[in-house]
This record gives sequence, structure tokens and C-alpha cells, in this order.
Amino acid sequence: MYRTVNNGELSKKNIGQQVTMCGWVQKSRDLGGMTFVDLRDRYGITQLVFNMETNSELCEKARSLGREFVIQIVGKVIERASINKEMKTGEIEVAVDQIIILNKSKIPPFTIEDQTDGGDDLRMKYRYLDLRREPVKNNLILRSEVAFHTRTYLKNQGFLEIETPVLIKSTPEGARDFVVPSRLNQGEFYALPQSPQTFKQLLMVSGYDKYYQIVKCFRDEDFRADRQPEFTQIDCEMAFVETEDILKTFEGLMKNILFETKGIKIDEVPRMTYADAIRDYGTDKPDLRFEMKIMNLESVCKGSGFNVFDSAETVLGVVVPGGAEFTRKQIDSLTDWVKRPQIGATGMIYCKFNEGGENKSSVDKFFDVSALKSWKEISGASDGDMLLILAGKKSVTINAIGNLRLEVAERLSLRDPNLYKPVWVTDFPLFEFDEETKTYHAMHHPFTSPNIDDMKLLETDPKMVRANAYDMALNGTEIGGGSIRIHNKELQQKVFNLLGFSDEEAHEKFGFLMEAFEYGAPPHGGIAFGLDRICAVIAGSDSIRDFIAFPKNNSGRDVMLDAPSKIDNDQLNELGLQTK
Amino acid sequence: MYRTVNNGELSKKNIGQQVTMCGWVQKSRDLGGMTFVDLRDRYGITQLVFNMETNSELCEKARSLGREFVIQIVGKVIERASINKEMKTGEIEVAVDQIIILNKSKIPPFTIEDQTDGGDDLRMKYRYLDLRREPVKNNLILRSEVAFHTRTYLKNQGFLEIETPVLIKSTPEGARDFVVPSRLNQGEFYALPQSPQTFKQLLMVSGYDKYYQIVKCFRDEDFRADRQPEFTQIDCEMAFVETEDILKTFEGLMKNILFETKGIKIDEVPRMTYADAIRDYGTDKPDLRFEMKIMNLESVCKGSGFNVFDSAETVLGVVVPGGAEFTRKQIDSLTDWVKRPQIGATGMIYCKFNEGGENKSSVDKFFDVSALKSWKEISGASDGDMLLILAGKKSVTINAIGNLRLEVAERLSLRDPNLYKPVWVTDFPLFEFDEETKTYHAMHHPFTSPNIDDMKLLETDPKMVRANAYDMALNGTEIGGGSIRIHNKELQQKVFNLLGFSDEEAHEKFGFLMEAFEYGAPPHGGIAFGLDRICAVIAGSDSIRDFIAFPKNNSGRDVMLDAPSKIDNDQLNELGLQTK
Repeated sequence: MYRTVNNGELSKKNIGQQVTMCGWVQKSRDLGGMTFVDLRDRYGITQLVFNMETNSELCEKARSLGREFVIQIVGKVIERASINKEMKTGEIEVAVDQIIILNKSKIPPFTIEDQTDGGDDLRMKYRYLDLRREPVKNNLILRSEVAFHTRTYLKNQGFLEIETPVLIKSTPEGARDFVVPSRLNQGEFYALPQSPQTFKQLLMVSGYDKYYQIVKCFRDEDFRADRQPEFTQIDCEMAFVETEDILKTFEGLMKNILFETKGIKIDEVPRMTYADAIRDYGTDKPDLRFEMKIMNLESVCKGSGFNVFDSAETVLGVVVPGGAEFTRKQIDSLTDWVKRPQIGATGMIYCKFNEGGENKSSVDKFFDVSALKSWKEISGASDGDMLLILAGKKSVTINAIGNLRLEVAERLSLRDPNLYKPVWVTDFPLFEFDEETKTYHAMHHPFTSPNIDDMKLLETDPKMVRANAYDMALNGTEIGGGSIRIHNKELQQKVFNLLGFSDEEAHEKFGFLMEAFEYGAPPHGGIAFGLDRICAVIAGSDSIRDFIAFPKNNSGRDVMLDAPSKIDNDQLNELGLQTK
Repeated sequence: MYRTVNNGELSKKNIGQQVTMCGWVQKSRDLGGMTFVDLRDRYGITQLVFNMETNSELCEKARSLGREFVIQIVGKVIERASINKEMKTGEIEVAVDQIIILNKSKIPPFTIEDQTDGGDDLRMKYRYLDLRREPVKNNLILRSEVAFHTRTYLKNQGFLEIETPVLIKSTPEGARDFVVPSRLNQGEFYALPQSPQTFKQLLMVSGYDKYYQIVKCFRDEDFRADRQPEFTQIDCEMAFVETEDILKTFEGLMKNILFETKGIKIDEVPRMTYADAIRDYGTDKPDLRFEMKIMNLESVCKGSGFNVFDSAETVLGVVVPGGAEFTRKQIDSLTDWVKRPQIGATGMIYCKFNEGGENKSSVDKFFDVSALKSWKEISGASDGDMLLILAGKKSVTINAIGNLRLEVAERLSLRDPNLYKPVWVTDFPLFEFDEETKTYHAMHHPFTSPNIDDMKLLETDPKMVRANAYDMALNGTEIGGGSIRIHNKELQQKVFNLLGFSDEEAHEKFGFLMEAFEYGAPPHGGIAFGLDRICAVIAGSDSIRDFIAFPKNNSGRDVMLDAPSKIDNDQLNELGLQTK
């Protein structure tokens, strides 16, 4: 027994007790005849006190302790002279009688503090030290909690946790597969799953009508910021269900997670079609923590001889609450922002509706007082607001104004980190049409079932077919998505054909699934949530990397392990492989 | 809403209710004017009834349903004429008003029954149909339950679930690694983890003092019966603990699992040293469901002029309760059994202690009445028992008699499938000495700490050093094992050296861990249980394959997916690889 209490649990009621404690030396301070050491573990920090007068030898030993030394102490809980209300254990300190140094520590390459002096690369190399920092620890604890409450909720809903294999068959499902050469079957490869999609559908065919798994998935992508080659999904599937059943079940999951981890109660998750989301928010993952809907201004802007509007495919605006106060500099900065290549607008027009009733636009030459009044009316702006207008090609402009909406909200601090606003986005298109290659891609994945009302359009105008697909967005981030699946072999074949798979290719890649559909496949559907992403959004972070214990960097390397790395020639020979 | 009730929940109290149900047609029977259809889902079977007189059209439709068709019905719950007490829903049946065929089914390639007519290969190819069978379903439900109760128990003990990476660095840790070629770092490879061993130790260095994870692990072994290239571990680690803390914590886990899944209460898990286990049971995973300890008979067998005994390194016996009744044929069959090459004994000697007090051995020529009496005394046999004796080389004989003990118990049905007898085996040797290569191997793994009392032997006689290592065996199967780890860089280096790693090799493979030990590594230890194995033992099965939803066959192939398989040349080129 190394300890009787941890560093987070002592309070006034323990005063007088003898305790044995372990932990790391966070810091120490010498104040006259006293030495104070902050002892840290997963549970908190406890102040240890040593008195030079009463035990100089022990006090000297305490003074010799370096940062991050691991020690065990025996001592007595006493009341603190000056109570620290910021600390859980701030009412007490421990007068130490005995120290055992369990392990020494070199001076860490960066400080183990909430705000550390260590750069990104250094912290990744010494990830085991970075993990000691409070904010990182809290992230991993949050993740553990989210996973636990997810499992408990789904278990209570009758879901079975079923593991699907990691060594599977390579199938082109969006991104590239990681592959694993087989030694016993030389020249052949397993693939790592991009998701357990086909397996969970097979489980439905097998009659396991409520399946879930929290599972690692793998994508060999060209690394971008905040993508990881391995990531974790909360993967779920149900049989004998319609969209409504799934939305209800997983709305419940999200409510449960938010309540258990944040104490926040959500009444109801609103729903919105994909078309409406694009129209009103310029994105399929709207941030509903603030209003600022996008307005179509074509009727009041076009036909006034202002060529920018007249020649534009669309004219869209967004009202900035209180924006009449914006300075010239603030507006210029927004104009520069929308003109960045990632946003792609050619310019920005504004109109201030000042408190006095006077309206002032950047295009007063072309629009008179009554025109501006009609802008105010149609956009629903109030005195003191400002209307921002973008015009141009439809697809670019809707995307740009959606981004502008978020940027303005960010600058106005309207994206409250303590608010949680999930939303279901439904009725996604089944296909995306790639103008370059003139081919269709599955918007969700090739197993998604078309909306039954649009079945005829499959033949005539595939890109207008809506899918039985839904995403959940939370605070402007997509955290999950799914669909009702196809469970009929002929329909599946038709969709594969529309996606450009020949019958042979479809058979080679998904023959087992097509065959399974011939032995009594039930109607089914499901959803997958990104666990890393849910944690990041709940904690108000942009980066999933902060919620992964041992992440890879943006080049897919684990710099702590130094992986990937070369392997022995013997190993290559056994696999029947040569590197070029 | 496809259904209002499932097929496992209706009873007398539902009589008169209108219900909508879904499921698979298990079988149908035409009896005169009535047709009965058994409708099956995950929850059970409900009998549907159709009456030719009252609705001939519907009854004809019912008669046209094939096995494994997926249907939806609307009907009314009625009392059964003849109650079936074997069935959960045997009190009622459902008089059907409406059938919708949700999907048809071809005739399955084998029967979906508890005892199926499908051979192993066929069932693997159509695994999704095999998974419909009740015994397979119950296995997966058991697995889901074991995982859930494991998580709940560990969470309640303060453990955090932390995920460790799957794409890691190749390290020679016992078996061969599966490797994953990197596209972005051509010529380099990730490896799949054989276990998260080093990561969980790093988490201890990071201060996460109670870690667990239910995690896939990978070993590229030459396949043997009942090995899978991917398998699942309940992986745990704790800091600031001694062996005692770990045994107490995980004894609690096993009690909890057995109670929650089987309703069985275990008082206390007995402990036994490795040396005692080998001496008394001839194995480090003793089956304690029955006694039959191995007896050393050297003192009463040697020196009587019987060369088989006199020239043997050891003479060991085991008492067969009631064995005096064994026929000549039964004894011969056992003799043949111990002489099989897997067992390796050269012969077997027996001595019956008959009920009348008369003793009769197969070596009466060499041993007189008083000698046999001394055998009886030393072995503790009673009238009616039989003593079986093996003699020969120590290592072979102890192993052979351990196996003989199990075989006899099996034949006498002493291995009661309803009894659960876990045992801790402790004090394993730290090293195994390989006589052929004259090198030491780590018995557990190279991170295992030596027993502090044996520290000096590290220099003088490494193979006598005991480890702080422990296994849990249940009913004769090892289900888990672990150790207190080394947390000191110098000691770790010394052990690596004894294992034949040069300092450079040790640094290259485990540099990050050695370095981590310099920054305040706490004392720590842990354990890993085989989830597949726990489920198999609890269900009384020999094979882990039955507890994996989509297992590989003995050549490491998934015959359903047809994986591993060839990949495109483009894909190979991208990876910078050539197959030979």
C-alpha cells in the first residue's frame, strides 16, 4: 500500500489524521524557516509543509527535491494558516514526518503547467510529460466520461456491443485504405477499416437489431491540419427502423452525453433540411448559437444598374447586430477576410442602419434612400445594425456568406462556448456530381437509401435525388451522420452502377454484402459519431488532437515513438516485399 | 415504426392486444386448416397462427413464406390451446390479420438451428447466417455483457478508459508484428500493437494512475488451432501499487463478471506460487474444479530394483478416485493416450486399491504388498481408488502427469462446466533459459520487475530469479496475466542486456520508454485479460473463435470477405512497394 489518500481529497474534516501520500513535486518554495512543496497526482494538489526549526534534516531533504520527482510522504493533516479557496484542498496542508524518494526526475524540457513554455514539437516528442498537464488531463478524462456514458445509454436502450475485425479487405470507400501485407498469403494484403460499415450491415442481416461499437477507424489521407490517420467512431446500427426512430434514439444519446458531462439539459434537437441549412446558413453544419440567417437580396438589389449585382448569379446578405458601430478599419478587415482565396468573394458591400434612422451604404452612388430602406425591410435589420452583402456565383457566394456569418459572430463573441446547440440536418442529396470527371459520387456512402419519393429521379435526374441521410451538427461542427441503408440487392446494384462500378467491380468489392441481401435482409439504418470530435466540441476546442492520448503529427508521424520507421530486410523478405 | 413488440416478450398478460411484429420465418407447419409460423428475432420466437377457414387468402400467403423470409405482421395476441413451457412466449400465439413481406430469402445453405447441418467452412463463408443461430447469438451477447460489466466495475474503481494508438512502431515483443507500409513516408512502416504495453506504462509515467482499455491486439503468428491474428485484451495498469493491490482489484473484476453474467458468487480467489502449481498440478494454469494433486513417489518407488523407476529423474503419481473400477481397456486407452507424442510419456504404471483391501499393480513383480501399501499411504488413496504413475525426465514427466490428470478428470466428468474456480498463480520465473540458443527469454515480458529478494541472483544465476508476475487461471485456462513493472532506467537496461539486447538496440526499440523513466516514473504494474478467452471459459467452450463475430480461419483468412487479397498496382506504387 503506497498511499492512504490521494492529493485531491483532503479537507478540514481530515485535520489531525495521519496520511501516506504519493505524487510528483509540482513546485517548492522556501519561506524563511518553512519549506512548502506542492504534491501533485491525477486527483489534485496538496501542500506539504516542512519546518526547519523542528526537523532541519527533513527540511533539507525537502529542499533538495527537484521538479517532477516522485515521492512518498507520511505526515499529519493540519489546518492552513491562510486558506486557499482556489484549491480543492486549500483548507489544509500536510506536516510531513517522512519522505521517500520513489524516483528522481531530470529537469523536464518544458514546464508542467496549464500554460506551458513548451512548443508543439517538443510537447509531442515528450507526450508523456505533456499528458501530465491539467488541461490535457481534463481532455482525456472528458473523453473517458463521454465513452462511458455513451455505452451506458446505449446498453440501456438495448444495444449490444459487437466488435468487428480490423484486418479486412481493401475496398475503395472514399479515402485510401491503409494495407497490411500478409506473410502467410504472400502478395496479398489486408486493409484497415475506414469504418465498420459493411460489417454492421451484415450484423443487421444476422438479426442483431441494435449494434454499437466504439471503434478505431483508419484513413490514409494526405494530412491536413486536424486530421488523424486513426480516429475513433461511435458506430451504431439498428434494424426495423425508419429515420424517425434513429433520430429519436441518438438525440437521446447526445442529450445524455451533454447532461452527464456538462450538466446541461437540452429540450429537443431541432431539424432542418439540407436545402434549408444551405439557404439559411450557407453550410450543412449550421452553428445555431446565434441567429444571423442569410437573406436573399436579389429582389431588392438587382436591376438597379449596379453591375456587380446585376451580373451576379445571386446576391446574399447577413445582418450584423449592432454593426452600425463598426469602424472603417473593422469593415476593411472583414472585406480583406472575405477576399482571401479560401473564402473567394470578390468584394463586400455594406449598409449601416444608424440609430438616428439614417442609412449609409458603400454603394450610395447606385442605391438611393428608398432602396436602402427596402434592404432594411427585407433583411429585418434594426436601427444600429449593419447589412453585409456578397454577390457572385451561387456556389461560391453561399459558401462565402456562410463563412462570413461565422467570422462576424466570432469577432462579436456570439459563439458562446457555454451554449450547446445541436441540430439534425436531413434530406441530403444522394449524389454529388463531379463537373470535372462528369461522374456521380455518393454524398454519404454507396449504401445510403434514396428517398422513396424521389425513386423515379434515379433514372432521370440522379443529382436531384434526396437520400434518407442525416447529420448531427453541434455548434457549427458535424459530429455525426448516418442514413437508412439500402437492403435490396437490385436497388444496391443500381446505385453501384450509377456510381460507375461495373457489376464485376461491385461483386468483387461488395459481393458478400450483395449476397447477404438475398438471405432475408431487414430494413435497417444507422449512424456514426466522431468521438474525438464530440469531445473537442464539448470542450470548446477546434482540434481533435488535444483529445487523443498519443496523436500523430500533421505528417502522420508519431514523433515520440519515431514511427513509421524502417523494418529489417528479414521482415520484408518474409512478407515477400521489396521497397523501391 | 416497424414494430410495437419483439418476439421474446409476449405472455398471458398481453392476450387481447393488437401487435405489430417483425422477424424472420424460422419454420412453418400446415396442420389441417391451420398454418403455424414461428417468427424469430434477437429476442425470441413467437408462434403466428393462420386459419384457412376464416381467411384463406392470408393463409395461402403464409404458406408461401419461405424459411428466413423477413416479414412484418399485424395481429392479435391469443391464448394457446396447448401451452409450450419450453418457450418464453409459449403461453400465447398471435392470430395474424396482415402480412407484409419485407424481404425474401433464398434457401439458406445450412439450417438456422441450434444443431445445424452446415460444416465449418460453409458457416464461415456465410458467417452472417451462422450468426443467426441461437448458440452463436448467445455467445456474442455474453461477450457484450462481459465487456459492459468490466467497464462498469473498472469505472467504479476509478479507472479511466484511455485509447492507445494502433499505428505504432515495430518492436520485437515475442511474436511477429503485422506492419503497415506508410505512403507519406515511403520505405517506412507502422506496426500494429501486440499489446499496448509501452503505452500503458507511459500513461503511468504521465500520472493516469488507473488505466484500462478493451483493445484489439495483433500477432502475426503461424496459425494454430484457436489462435486469431487479432484478439481482444482487457488491458489495465495502475501506479503506486504492489502485487497485493493488483490481485485484490482484479479478483474483484473476475468476481463481478461471474456474478453479473452467471449469477455465481466466488468467495476468494486462492493463490499459489508457480513452483507449487507445477509441483501439484504439473501446469501453471491448474484446473481446481477437482483435487487429484500430483504426488512425488520417488521415496517409495526408487531403489527397489525396478529400472524404470530407478533410472528416472522423477516418479510422479496421481490418484484416480474410484479408479479401481477401471477396466483393462480403459487403462490401456489411458496408456496409449500418455504415449502420444504430444504427451511424451514412455509408459504408465497403475496400482488399484480394491475395495476389499487388496492392492494390485502392473508392476507386482517388482513391488510387494508392503511396497504397495506405502504407495497407498503416501498418495493418500482410499479403497476403490487407483494410482497412476509416470516416471522419466523431470520436465517431460511433470508435464505429462499434469495432462494425464486433466484427461482422467475429463473422462470421469470431474470438470464440471457449472463450477468456476479461478486461481492466482504468482512468483513466475523472470527468465526462461533456451538450452538450444543458450539465451534468456523474458517469461512474461522484458518490462517485468524481478522479486526484490532475488536481486543478487540477477548477476549470479538469472534463471533462478523470480518475477513480480502473476497469472489468473480459470478452470484450467490462463485468462490473464501481468506483473509489477520495472520503473528504473538502470534496472531496465540490465534486464535488456540479460535478454541479449545491446544498449543501441534497446535504445532504438524502447528509447522513449527508457527516457520516460528519467522524468519521474512512479512504481507501477498491471495486467491484461483475454476477453475472447474469458468468454470462452465462462461459456464452457474450448474455442475463442465462437466468441468473435467475424473470425479468421486457421490460415488467417476471412473466407466471407475473401481477405487478404491482391491490391492494385497503383496502390503498390503509391506505397513504393513491389511484391516478389
